[in-house]
Amino acid sequence: MRAWEKNFRKVEPYTPGEQPEFADMIKLNTNECPYPPTPRLLREIRALGEKMDNVRLYPNYKSESLVNALAKYYEVGADQVFVGVGSDDVLSVAFLTFFNSKEPILFPDITYSFYDVWAELYRIPYERPALDENFRIRKEDYYRKNGGIVIANPNAPTSIAEGLEFIEDILMHNRESVVIVDEAYVDFGGQSALPLIEKYENLLVVQTFSKSRAMAGMRVGYAIGHPTLIKAMNDVKYSMNSYTMNYPALMCGVCAVEDQNYFKQCCNKIIATREWTKKKLAELGFTSLDSSANFLFSTHKSVPAKQIFEELRKYNIFVRYFEKPRIDNYLRITIGTQRQMETFVDILKKIL
Amino acid sequence: MRAWEKNFRKVEPYTPGEQPEFADMIKLNTNECPYPPTPRLLREIRALGEKMDNVRLYPNYKSESLVNALAKYYEVGADQVFVGVGSDDVLSVAFLTFFNSKEPILFPDITYSFYDVWAELYRIPYERPALDENFRIRKEDYYRKNGGIVIANPNAPTSIAEGLEFIEDILMHNRESVVIVDEAYVDFGGQSALPLIEKYENLLVVQTFSKSRAMAGMRVGYAIGHPTLIKAMNDVKYSMNSYTMNYPALMCGVCAVEDQNYFKQCCNKIIATREWTKKKLAELGFTSLDSSANFLFSTHKSVPAKQIFEELRKYNIFVRYFEKPRIDNYLRITIGTQRQMETFVDILKKIL
Repeated sequence: MRAWEKNFRKVEPYTPGEQPEFADMIKLNTNECPYPPTPRLLREIRALGEKMDNVRLYPNYKSESLVNALAKYYEVGADQVFVGVGSDDVLSVAFLTFFNSKEPILFPDITYSFYDVWAELYRIPYERPALDENFRIRKEDYYRKNGGIVIANPNAPTSIAEGLEFIEDILMHNRESVVIVDEAYVDFGGQSALPLIEKYENLLVVQTFSKSRAMAGMRVGYAIGHPTLIKAMNDVKYSMNSYTMNYPALMCGVCAVEDQNYFKQCCNKIIATREWTKKKLAELGFTSLDSSANFLFSTHKSVPAKQIFEELRKYNIFVRYFEKPRIDNYLRITIGTQRQMETFVDILKKIL
Repeated sequence: MRAWEKNFRKVEPYTPGEQPEFADMIKLNTNECPYPPTPRLLREIRALGEKMDNVRLYPNYKSESLVNALAKYYEVGADQVFVGVGSDDVLSVAFLTFFNSKEPILFPDITYSFYDVWAELYRIPYERPALDENFRIRKEDYYRKNGGIVIANPNAPTSIAEGLEFIEDILMHNRESVVIVDEAYVDFGGQSALPLIEKYENLLVVQTFSKSRAMAGMRVGYAIGHPTLIKAMNDVKYSMNSYTMNYPALMCGVCAVEDQNYFKQCCNKIIATREWTKKKLAELGFTSLDSSANFLFSTHKSVPAKQIFEELRKYNIFVRYFEKPRIDNYLRITIGTQRQMETFVDILKKIL
């Protein structure tokens, strides 16, 4: 090891889901939306062509157009909205901003696998209370002294959503640290904690454009909370990179927020296909957890998950498999179009 | 102060240059390019419209298309290129990755004012050796034990470039820490340190699309260095946000790298206008440092810089003024189009 290598930050990076690029494949492994974003985006892209000269200028560093569109949609103040390069950027900034206590932060043992990566990166102490035997969060585990709390709701990869009283119970027991509720999947049947932000100033709600708004490729996420939280996050953000959102992300983001009808239709189609798929999977001997997300978390009564995962790959069907304790006999299956899921079920019949 | 506020990270954010949005203004305050990006970008934007369905998918997390285009252009391996959301993102990741020593990192007292912001944010000890009386870097100041070195070359806001032997001298004296050379302005007359990367494995060269490639609004920057450096940066990057570059940034970035002719023409025009402006300013009683950048750093023999700065604003002409020791009688003047600079000189004549 060379001398200058000794001072490298030691990290264990997050492993993103595989991104195969076959022309003909069914990609159900990274919880993207199977439908394209609102067709109005095309208009925005054309408008961008006419504004090409602007690209030479820095974008508005407060991302005002997008912040204002989100504030209007959610009926909050512009000073209550933070935007970032996907919700991963938003969460990363939140971890760095809020979690500087010597007490450990708390999040479940089975949840979004980026939380412990950020904690390690920023040297934040953390503990992971175990989900119960039904993969539910035990709220009592979050009643003790801590440096912060992170709850994904619906949780991933379990797909299970907890109700608003559950989140409020955790908030009532935690007045002294910041509580982050990561609602990446909330639009597929979960209950958002947004109605609680006025009552609990230490609550930060994080959402994304990558799932229900079909814009994973545009990198837009956001957080909503008390102005004190948002200001602190912006201060840290402006200490890392003043201009994170480029012109296309801002323009397309505003457009996607404004087309509410398309957004709702899209979510409803995915929910309908999810319930259809769950029923078909049950007929094939699978048990799936009750999902409020755009994916199912399913296990088969006799065939090992890993084997099914590998067989599906041979047909260019990609689902997610985690080789981790407690969940290594489950598959996380993103909901595709109705037609894709019909093919998926047909192939499963062949495999089993 | 509420209990949960006590654990907020304390920072003093970077102050970006003002971004006024008047329809009719001459904006010479943030070192953007006065010319639009290559007209070929329009073709890319149209192509993006046809690929809108892709926007629902995560982008390639290795940013392979852009990394490969840069590797080809600079004749290095793809494993020697890191890309980020502007060079601020690249530098921020580099600070977090490489500067974990207890020894202080070193950079000049007068240089890009984001360096100390990152050092503060990431709790990196730092010292700032003073530039000499001619605003030149004293290389002997960098001969002592340190946790890393950051040199902007050309330096900002001084505009002065040092030669390759100067950079190599610093490298020869620093085999045990990472040396970052920030070349945001190198395309306007500086000498790049890129020829040294094979010889010095601890050298990281950082450049940007925001100045010479006229794409500040698209947020693209990059670093080139030994594969060991690039891998360490990618590991940290994948621990923060796997997908930072959105589709338009990748597509437009590739296009801008490939249109070398347009790029060179653009740089040459700016250099010619810079030299013209410098001469005119001299006739008006200004002294400007020898610039190898797309801006001039100028002081007037009798009228205080702050007063000129304020008078110019009344004409919607924006330049940058730093209220900081040693440089508070200087203006940093971005080079605009030839026509803009003619107007600028005319207005100056009125003011003085």
